Amino acid sequence: MAQQHLDPTDPVAATATGEALAGYLRAQATEFLRALRQHRETGAGGNGSAESVEAARALRRSARRISGSLHTFRTLLDPDWSEGMRPELAWLSGTLALEHAYAARLDRLLTALHRLSGSPALPTQPTPPSTTKGTTANTTTGTTTNLTVGAAKAGALLDRQLTLARTRAHSAALQALGSSRFHAVADKVAVLASEVPLTPTAATTDLQPLAAAAEERLTDAVSALPLLTAGHPYNATALVHGLSPDPAPHPQDAPWHQVRLLLRLHRYAREVIDGAEAAVNVRLLAAGQALNRHRDAAEASAAAASAARTPRIAPATAYALGVLHADQRHEVEAARFAFHQSWQKQRVTTP
Amino acid sequence: MAQQHLDPTDPVAATATGEALAGYLRAQATEFLRALRQHRETGAGGNGSAESVEAARALRRSARRISGSLHTFRTLLDPDWSEGMRPELAWLSGTLALEHAYAARLDRLLTALHRLSGSPALPTQPTPPSTTKGTTANTTTGTTTNLTVGAAKAGALLDRQLTLARTRAHSAALQALGSSRFHAVADKVAVLASEVPLTPTAATTDLQPLAAAAEERLTDAVSALPLLTAGHPYNATALVHGLSPDPAPHPQDAPWHQVRLLLRLHRYAREVIDGAEAAVNVRLLAAGQALNRHRDAAEASAAAASAARTPRIAPATAYALGVLHADQRHEVEAARFAFHQSWQKQRVTTP
Repeated sequence: MAQQHLDPTDPVAATATGEALAGYLRAQATEFLRALRQHRETGAGGNGSAESVEAARALRRSARRISGSLHTFRTLLDPDWSEGMRPELAWLSGTLALEHAYAARLDRLLTALHRLSGSPALPTQPTPPSTTKGTTANTTTGTTTNLTVGAAKAGALLDRQLTLARTRAHSAALQALGSSRFHAVADKVAVLASEVPLTPTAATTDLQPLAAAAEERLTDAVSALPLLTAGHPYNATALVHGLSPDPAPHPQDAPWHQVRLLLRLHRYAREVIDGAEAAVNVRLLAAGQALNRHRDAAEASAAAASAARTPRIAPATAYALGVLHADQRHEVEAARFAFHQSWQKQRVTTP
Repeated sequence: MAQQHLDPTDPVAATATGEALAGYLRAQATEFLRALRQHRETGAGGNGSAESVEAARALRRSARRISGSLHTFRTLLDPDWSEGMRPELAWLSGTLALEHAYAARLDRLLTALHRLSGSPALPTQPTPPSTTKGTTANTTTGTTTNLTVGAAKAGALLDRQLTLARTRAHSAALQALGSSRFHAVADKVAVLASEVPLTPTAATTDLQPLAAAAEERLTDAVSALPLLTAGHPYNATALVHGLSPDPAPHPQDAPWHQVRLLLRLHRYAREVIDGAEAAVNVRLLAAGQALNRHRDAAEASAAAASAARTPRIAPATAYALGVLHADQRHEVEAARFAFHQSWQKQRVTTP
């Protein structure tokens, strides 16, 4: 069965050139403009209807793809135009992403708090005889209340802090969408939808070498990751700096975040060459999802640690935030393991 | 090479009968008396020289083996004598074990705190450029001190609480060793060293069915464990009740603790039948070590949670104890995974 599929790396297949890049950029620019129109129509001012959220997501999605393609295939495009465009697209998608990121982070942390409090919705283990349970409850009622309150207070504190951050991000996004800086980007994208500034020779240049270079940057970065450790379950590496005096994002996370960006650039380059209708590489997708989860868990753990530094919180609240921080760092470690698994599979099947 | 070893399960090999049980019990009783003599000579009063610790360990070791064999092969022994002996041996080894357990728990928790504080002795990940580091340090010096102090204070609190518990356990052990209750046990063991109260038919009874029953109790208990979940790395099950209102030992741990005891009984039964000089079953040993680690981590996590309920502690201390608690619950999960791995291996190689 598998042999019957078209192999996009088959050298006999039609070679993708700068024409394909131009087609891809035009399509993404059109998608950007469509999403922008939808975003305006669904009321960007209202605090997030489903359509408005979807439109913002589509806007970011196309902005990332245009920006990524400008980067990978920059030698085929007018350099002044390209270098002026990329930072503006990065600014735009970064600004639009923040509101969603805060909402997702709060959701992740509250879900985790719920799970850690032994939600009855989760699969439970056999319970001990009721007599034991009764005795325990009798002797410790005072202290139990404390811990439950701790989890609840931690949830309320995170809710307050992340909702505030989200509201600010929402205002900033609205302000950005109304700014002259944004209108300049939108105008440039509108031009791109019909006219791609290719260099004179680009139309007949093979895209493959530039795409291969993007893939090589990815594989180089992956080979620098501590994959041997990551593939060993329960290596307890992610929490190593859990109580370190440095409250900055864990330095050990940085190379993983970098691979996440390079994997995305590689994926976009494949989209340009294979076309949007080509089969999705499931393993690449799984690897990318593991790295998204890695980033989300790392940022959630940092939010829990940061909330624990709020002055005058109760010890029970701080304790709950400590448990939550460690839980999310375990998620970071789990995501690295998942990345390792999907990446290994990939290398086995690629000839 | 492997085929050249003697196979103790070979039905052609000599059948172990009650005689073998009597020989095993006499040897363990002799070992018990030797360890007791050594414990007295090395000064049980002094707070733990290496020899005294080793003697106490040997004492517990033989007490557990005698007690376990009395249980597994109880139908071959005088029932009154056997039923009177077992609780006394359990009391003795339990009392002697506590001091060591508190010391090991403190050691485990302080080692973990050290690791979580990013000890330079541990393998480090690539660090970010020094400029970033400098900026971070400048903006957050005030809060960093807080967290470092938190880890240090948590360590001091645990040290205080577990050292106190250990000192009390030491006194209790000394008191036990001087009690008439202990002298009665020691006298009984001295008799056992020369005279084992077998039932009239025991000397010619095959031990295999009773040993097989012990193994069956083990395999039944193992098959009731959530092994499918445990074999799936990063299943996040062990921490599910991390913030539950019930501060009692996690009910999900109980079936694992039970398997640990049954595995031990199975091991001792094999020792009786195969003889002390038989090759150690490495996989059984690994499975047992995983369950010991499971127990130790579960108790350490409970100690951290209990310390967090100390009145009037600083939020930073509580936060560090929360991280520590979660770290040890993660160890619990890792130990279950390790047990699953060694247990699966065993089933594959056993015909």
